[in-house]
Amino acid sequence: MAEPRSDGVDVAVAAARRLVTALLRAGDGTGADMTEIAARLDAVTDGLTEKAPTVPERLAEMWRGEGVTRHDPVTGPENAVAPPLTLHGREDRSIEGVVTLDLPYQGPPGHVHGGVSALLLDHTLGVANHWAGTSGMTAELTLRYLRPTPLFEPLTVTGRQVSVDGSRIRTAGEITAGGRVCVTAEGLFVNKQLPRPS
Amino acid sequence: MAEPRSDGVDVAVAAARRLVTALLRAGDGTGADMTEIAARLDAVTDGLTEKAPTVPERLAEMWRGEGVTRHDPVTGPENAVAPPLTLHGREDRSIEGVVTLDLPYQGPPGHVHGGVSALLLDHTLGVANHWAGTSGMTAELTLRYLRPTPLFEPLTVTGRQVSVDGSRIRTAGEITAGGRVCVTAEGLFVNKQLPRPS
Repeated sequence: MAEPRSDGVDVAVAAARRLVTALLRAGDGTGADMTEIAARLDAVTDGLTEKAPTVPERLAEMWRGEGVTRHDPVTGPENAVAPPLTLHGREDRSIEGVVTLDLPYQGPPGHVHGGVSALLLDHTLGVANHWAGTSGMTAELTLRYLRPTPLFEPLTVTGRQVSVDGSRIRTAGEITAGGRVCVTAEGLFVNKQLPRPS
Repeated sequence: MAEPRSDGVDVAVAAARRLVTALLRAGDGTGADMTEIAARLDAVTDGLTEKAPTVPERLAEMWRGEGVTRHDPVTGPENAVAPPLTLHGREDRSIEGVVTLDLPYQGPPGHVHGGVSALLLDHTLGVANHWAGTSGMTAELTLRYLRPTPLFEPLTVTGRQVSVDGSRIRTAGEITAGGRVCVTAEGLFVNKQLPRPS
């Protein structure tokens, strides 16, 4: 639910994401000087590292406040590993987002990696719990793969809290492509949280 | 089981991976000019894109031969999204790898995202099937989260084929940290493959 910003680190992260895809689309054999490219990237990394806070400082900063996270590997605009999926809460208390995945998320030829679908769904179920008002940590997650999930096409990812029984939360979700269900998820979450770093 | 090479695209991908982590460790507020950094990264991306094959050509190239893949989001040395995990086959037909994860893979504060654990395990179970001689696509995957999985510490990821019954393959695996099991996975795979692009 964190929207990418048009300035600050989000802009550089979006560029890093394009770069990750471009490297994978290029592969070897383009004649590009990859050692020179590595040196240019390392120069950027070195500049950032010089100015960066320590990891404990950064962790404390990341987890400050009660807002949604901006750094996670699914929706995080500060995380180039994230596609990113942008999730929106719906009035019926469910959550939905649409994302189109490229080569970095490939499993079988031309299709989404089963583990990437699991990553998207686990996160979406967690956000659905947050949106419904009672969230927790994943205790058990079951994924069923009904048909291959395509790359390069819009995927709809949804999640909804099904029940809360004491500390046990049940949540479900799915990924659809062109209106057909590709993957379903059922999660059991427990209503506890790890302490926030300070 | 694909080892990163010391030349070619793997070198630039390793640098891109360091950059992704550095951006997330930096965040906002370092005073770095993120718009200028984005422009430098986009210049690299543009150069690569000019020389890159088309996506269908690249897909055909990626899937040529019977070797292991070099592009997947878990072990792929050509994929900066991959940590990467390097898996080795053991004599008892199981598979093992050790990986230390940084901030891009965070879920709860200071710990690995449950969906990232699912991604690592789904892939490792698939490779375990390949190593055991009968592989297929994930039909069902169940993950149990026994304790939080730490960032910044070596994690051991293992997988082993449990049984093959007709087209149904059962495979299990786990992630351990400091000898304690953090996450277990049980997978049902079906012995079919999507066609390779040509």
